[in-house]
Amino acid sequence: MSATLQDIISHAKEYGFVFPSSEIYDGLQAVYDYGQNGVELKNNLKQVWWKAMTQLHDNIVGVDAAIFMHPLTWKASGHVDGFNDPMIDNKDSKKRYRADQLLEGKAEEYAAAGQQDKADALLQKMGELLSAEKLDEVRDLIIAEGITCPISKTSNWTEVRQFNLMFSTQVGSVAEDSSLIYLRPETAQGIFVNFLNVQKSGRMKVPFGIAQIGKAFRNEIVARQFTFRMREFEQMEMQFFVRPGSEMEWYEKWKETRMRFHKAIGLPAEKLKYHDHEKLAHYANAAVDIEFEFPFGFREIEGIHSRTDFDLRNHQELSKKKLQYFDPDLGEDGKAIGNYIPYVIETSVGADRMFLAAFCNAYTVETGEKERTYLKLHPALSPIKAAVLPLVKKDGLAEKAQEIAASLRLHFRTVYDEGGAIGKRYTRQDLIGTPFCIAVDYETMENNTVTIRHRDSMEQERVPIDQLKEKIGYAVDFQRILEAI
Amino acid sequence: MSATLQDIISHAKEYGFVFPSSEIYDGLQAVYDYGQNGVELKNNLKQVWWKAMTQLHDNIVGVDAAIFMHPLTWKASGHVDGFNDPMIDNKDSKKRYRADQLLEGKAEEYAAAGQQDKADALLQKMGELLSAEKLDEVRDLIIAEGITCPISKTSNWTEVRQFNLMFSTQVGSVAEDSSLIYLRPETAQGIFVNFLNVQKSGRMKVPFGIAQIGKAFRNEIVARQFTFRMREFEQMEMQFFVRPGSEMEWYEKWKETRMRFHKAIGLPAEKLKYHDHEKLAHYANAAVDIEFEFPFGFREIEGIHSRTDFDLRNHQELSKKKLQYFDPDLGEDGKAIGNYIPYVIETSVGADRMFLAAFCNAYTVETGEKERTYLKLHPALSPIKAAVLPLVKKDGLAEKAQEIAASLRLHFRTVYDEGGAIGKRYTRQDLIGTPFCIAVDYETMENNTVTIRHRDSMEQERVPIDQLKEKIGYAVDFQRILEAI
Repeated sequence: MSATLQDIISHAKEYGFVFPSSEIYDGLQAVYDYGQNGVELKNNLKQVWWKAMTQLHDNIVGVDAAIFMHPLTWKASGHVDGFNDPMIDNKDSKKRYRADQLLEGKAEEYAAAGQQDKADALLQKMGELLSAEKLDEVRDLIIAEGITCPISKTSNWTEVRQFNLMFSTQVGSVAEDSSLIYLRPETAQGIFVNFLNVQKSGRMKVPFGIAQIGKAFRNEIVARQFTFRMREFEQMEMQFFVRPGSEMEWYEKWKETRMRFHKAIGLPAEKLKYHDHEKLAHYANAAVDIEFEFPFGFREIEGIHSRTDFDLRNHQELSKKKLQYFDPDLGEDGKAIGNYIPYVIETSVGADRMFLAAFCNAYTVETGEKERTYLKLHPALSPIKAAVLPLVKKDGLAEKAQEIAASLRLHFRTVYDEGGAIGKRYTRQDLIGTPFCIAVDYETMENNTVTIRHRDSMEQERVPIDQLKEKIGYAVDFQRILEAI
Repeated sequence: MSATLQDIISHAKEYGFVFPSSEIYDGLQAVYDYGQNGVELKNNLKQVWWKAMTQLHDNIVGVDAAIFMHPLTWKASGHVDGFNDPMIDNKDSKKRYRADQLLEGKAEEYAAAGQQDKADALLQKMGELLSAEKLDEVRDLIIAEGITCPISKTSNWTEVRQFNLMFSTQVGSVAEDSSLIYLRPETAQGIFVNFLNVQKSGRMKVPFGIAQIGKAFRNEIVARQFTFRMREFEQMEMQFFVRPGSEMEWYEKWKETRMRFHKAIGLPAEKLKYHDHEKLAHYANAAVDIEFEFPFGFREIEGIHSRTDFDLRNHQELSKKKLQYFDPDLGEDGKAIGNYIPYVIETSVGADRMFLAAFCNAYTVETGEKERTYLKLHPALSPIKAAVLPLVKKDGLAEKAQEIAASLRLHFRTVYDEGGAIGKRYTRQDLIGTPFCIAVDYETMENNTVTIRHRDSMEQERVPIDQLKEKIGYAVDFQRILEAI
């Protein structure tokens, strides 16, 4: 039985993974908070990505740039002028829509009715008008196509306007020295503006990479699909700086390496696929998405882009600072290669999408005889690694179990639970994805052994207490994921 | 020789710990970026705090609430109405000042001139006027005291106005549905609004705590002292919910526990002290700071506050949602205690201050015969744990060293460095605080042993390669810090 997005959202809330933001005030649209189990799963994903990038590679280091950046950054990157959605309002319903989405909807109607030619022609026309910024003609096209507002059913449309997706705020006091700054819409620029500082202070040699995890913000008009598209979200990005001309080789390499990562954390091959970009962004000469099959279909969880020298070149022009690398190696002509602006391969993961993919994939409902719901998370990603459960509270079993929990807790997240029948306690751990339940029974008191109950197989094995740390510690260590990449 | 703040800032930039934000655009005031070594040190501090809170305690869990929250949150917390600084402008220089800081400066002048009585009277008067919001009289006082602008040297002052320190932005499109929201000025409220969701979904029993790490933002007029006071900063907060009446007992307990933490990460006792608040915030019935001795004096790195039920009660009133806990235990009268709004003990660390404290404390300049500069960081906090250095590149030593680095890298951050004389490479690692340098020499090729050179003592010991993982792994594990808390 295949889970719906609604099943996922309910489970996430009920078991402390994701809560609507500010829920006591009826929430804030397209913003979510991670609960006590969600934060652990998300942190584990962030940590294993970080290790996979920086710890596994001598030539990749991290940075943590601020969310606030100098406003010229976004001029150089093209976001001030070009990071827009074309919006149109219906005057009767007062509802606002993305003009391109209205036209795309119409094209889908044509396609569904077998008129693929008409659909293609409409999309091409739209693309031309938007590229040429002919917004009046986009409005004319909407009216000509007879597109009406789903609420008011009228075509009483306003003009089409460009709406910038960056959030802005005033920094400084209200006096003459205050200025408009933006909340970064992507983390990548925090890497580019620090390129030279990192390269020089870290004595980095091309090819090398800079990795970063951090929040970004986009004022999405139509946010949807739970944590898939949020106004506040987190990115895990790595910019890999290479010699111009070698970028396609590195692009292919990273494309493969990143796919191995997603498999290593437990996403199955059949739920993952590549999706090459047909239309390339203005800064890219190659781009591919890694898509995961969510309950709402295959969607992007990571993008790998060959960004050329677009960003560094623009920053160099605007800042008048040389953002170049001196390459001491010799070229094919036997002469030193010398100064150049490196080309960039970017790998960019949505941390919240990664979380949602891992969560959806883990959510398992077994029917039939052994009916149960559990989260089949990779043990290294599980919020809680082990639960220590005394069979009964009396006869010293509770104390013994607490003692075991206290000793394991120094090494990995371990909880103690004495409340309710043991079967119920297993269920509780299944629902949040705890891979190992340790039961303390009367035999424990005699020979210092416990049973480990395995989440996925529900099998139990008897093991000496002094082997728990090593046995569970090995299973829940990130090392197993890192080795598989 | 005692380091100045300027020494610290220079070292932080030169060795990849902290860069000015957007430096290629001449920076952004009071905002900083963490470089390749800084991000590792900061992440280590965040992780060990997180483990000390959530992993060591069965009754403390984490959350990760969004930076964006419903605007009523800040009405309930008092920030919309009360989170202000009184500002005054000099009309001639067009410079803006905090009115209270001008008066405090005058009081310091009196005190320095031996007129402590006058200083005290002035501060008391100022406090009364500000509490009563008599801003006109604050201006009169500034003029009466003959306070002039340091730039224009005139007392041509504007009126005094309250300036709210929260950053705001518009969410939603510019149409009728857009609304003003704030960037959170503290992370604590993200815990309070999630109190009930966490308590219910996690089946938490009072006393219990909720921990969170995240960014917060304050539009500081006068930001200063490097990463000590920034406009964008990171907090590590834990709110501990207790039965009313038991709060002082928990306050004392957390006061001690938190001091042990700072000592466990390597801050020396003589550089730490408590500082009780004389004036309590409107929400608190007890408050103490843990101060660290920075190059610019003893300053707060953590606050422990007994916040009563102020926040939960206000949220309950404004949201009309019951934020109460049902306590099944029996009271002294033998009856069930039942429903109440828990009291709260808060422990609140500035992550950037913690970073600065650890960095300042580690910065060591040895003079005399063995003159050198190094970072004496706790090994578990060091950005890089081990550097593998072949004595020479030839005769297979480079390959052997790379092989060792590759095997250690799966367990902890290890780098390989072959460039330059070995002494120079030791120095390079000293400057960034790497605790262990592993030298591969000709003897290695014969008997599979290497030398470990210890950062602090500069002593070298010969060890078999197959003991490196365990020996260094133990020394750099967070476990040693956790055991010491």
